[in-house]
Amino acid sequence: MHDDSVRMSVEEVRALALRTLTAAGLSEAQAGPVAEVITRGERDACASHGLYRLPGCVQTIRFEKFRPDAEPVIEDVSPALVRADAGYGYSLLAFERALPLLTAKARETGLAALAINNCFHFSALWPEVEMIAEAGLAGLAMTPSHAWVAPAGGTRPALGTNPIAFAWPRPEGHPYVFDFATSAIARGDISLHEIAGKPIPEGWGIDSEGRPTTSASEALSGAMLTFGGHKGSALSTMIELMAGPLIGDMTSLQSIDFDDGAKAAPCHGELVLAFCPKRMGLDPEASSQAAETLFATIAGQGARLPSQRRFEARARSLKEGVQVPKTLMDRIHALEL
Amino acid sequence: MHDDSVRMSVEEVRALALRTLTAAGLSEAQAGPVAEVITRGERDACASHGLYRLPGCVQTIRFEKFRPDAEPVIEDVSPALVRADAGYGYSLLAFERALPLLTAKARETGLAALAINNCFHFSALWPEVEMIAEAGLAGLAMTPSHAWVAPAGGTRPALGTNPIAFAWPRPEGHPYVFDFATSAIARGDISLHEIAGKPIPEGWGIDSEGRPTTSASEALSGAMLTFGGHKGSALSTMIELMAGPLIGDMTSLQSIDFDDGAKAAPCHGELVLAFCPKRMGLDPEASSQAAETLFATIAGQGARLPSQRRFEARARSLKEGVQVPKTLMDRIHALEL
Repeated sequence: MHDDSVRMSVEEVRALALRTLTAAGLSEAQAGPVAEVITRGERDACASHGLYRLPGCVQTIRFEKFRPDAEPVIEDVSPALVRADAGYGYSLLAFERALPLLTAKARETGLAALAINNCFHFSALWPEVEMIAEAGLAGLAMTPSHAWVAPAGGTRPALGTNPIAFAWPRPEGHPYVFDFATSAIARGDISLHEIAGKPIPEGWGIDSEGRPTTSASEALSGAMLTFGGHKGSALSTMIELMAGPLIGDMTSLQSIDFDDGAKAAPCHGELVLAFCPKRMGLDPEASSQAAETLFATIAGQGARLPSQRRFEARARSLKEGVQVPKTLMDRIHALEL
Repeated sequence: MHDDSVRMSVEEVRALALRTLTAAGLSEAQAGPVAEVITRGERDACASHGLYRLPGCVQTIRFEKFRPDAEPVIEDVSPALVRADAGYGYSLLAFERALPLLTAKARETGLAALAINNCFHFSALWPEVEMIAEAGLAGLAMTPSHAWVAPAGGTRPALGTNPIAFAWPRPEGHPYVFDFATSAIARGDISLHEIAGKPIPEGWGIDSEGRPTTSASEALSGAMLTFGGHKGSALSTMIELMAGPLIGDMTSLQSIDFDDGAKAAPCHGELVLAFCPKRMGLDPEASSQAAETLFATIAGQGARLPSQRRFEARARSLKEGVQVPKTLMDRIHALEL
């Protein structure tokens, strides 16, 4: 394993990401938060959201509809609503620039929404909700993606992989955080099975005739399935509506049309909600304690809190650095920049 | 079937519910919205939320901690936040009284929350989010319940059955609506299997040692499971936090302690969110059309939209009335009021 990988410090990961993105033509303002989120993915051993994403980012930067020097426009719409027009750059700079206004509004009003429009999106949502929790707030974020997923009982794509992430601030240590796709599995995992020539488990996908399949290729050209049957399918539909039409942005059906075969990151909107337990609660101290009792009851019976593994990897990476596969380093060095 | 049931008009269902509730000592103000929600359940062929609930309501009304004449106190907290202290009566009168302020705030500010505190809760959430959609808004509602459900990977109860409901307004016809428990199945369904002496499918529950079981009795004394594995478990935990500590109310662990074996309806809080597509969107007409295209893509491939069966039953019931099992009518008439 170690012979096939390169040890790097977290700082070196950040520098490599930044260098690659700016060499591909991304503005320094856009590249900063993209490099940061890739670094956090690598640091937390979320390999699929780490340096692995760099080649895809370069492909997106070169997409004719992408604006590598986009400057987000932040609008203070109401006491509970911030809008960020990402201007067809990445979502991340828009999020970073709008976050202070979002958290200030949530503290003042109790809750607030950030609607990000016209953004290319490839990143995990947990770094964003974690930042909201660090501000002492509960965060909830969701996006559509591309129409790759069939609804429960259906035979062809209508929904995206539609991730949802949530974080709750805790008085000590890391927040309670989850971030999951509402598809049964990430699309990348099916691709990895295809590359390895391995069958996929039942329940991940259907073929182009709508029949259950264990072939990764058939599922990729047919449709993925949601997690949790009709409940997961309903939830995924809600995410389409909330992070799409509600905020005046594209559904996954529209986003895949917009991509027009370029295989860039999906372009659509993002909805981020922040809730202030101090402002919405009655006795925040007692409520925080009740939440801690819930976490203790979960963890005390051997059930893992979501993100626990990620936080353990983070501590390890900050001390020892990360191991990046040589094959991935080769792919990054081979990018013609 | 028809010999074992009684045909009633929807109006007769409402009158029976109202008569029973007020005879049990519930104030007329409290009884009105409770009878209404029971009538809607029966009308929509959600038998488990129809007249079937009356005996349980009577038991709750007689619980010493319940206030049968509670008058909710509505507080205008901020431009996006309404609080309703239900005063240990049912949630429904508090919801009814706070709804106009919630919808007005959502239209003005883009989004708004209603935090209902100190309420006894037994009702489906779809009638509430449907009312929000009738006002042209998207509605999202959630509550904890009693700690009957084990977290993914766990062995004993920590979570409630924690329902979540969502509605999206449509230009014509019924809204898009779902309402589901985050447990694999409703607790009542496991009870029905116990009564019928039938085994339950795997995945519904575990015994008191945390082992998978197909015995309904063992699952009821052990723990129920969530839908969708670790994703459903994470979502259920989010509902605990959002409709509990966030708004200063009880978790399912606290609520079952509060009940202290009385088997009344769970007492806790409820979080209701309303979002205005006109205020949060950019081109509401185009967005509404994008949502309709999504629904057409789902329904056009033979996948049922959630609540479709319910709306069909509604049309039938309003024309032909409903069939109520004689055994249920006998139970209602046998209530000592």
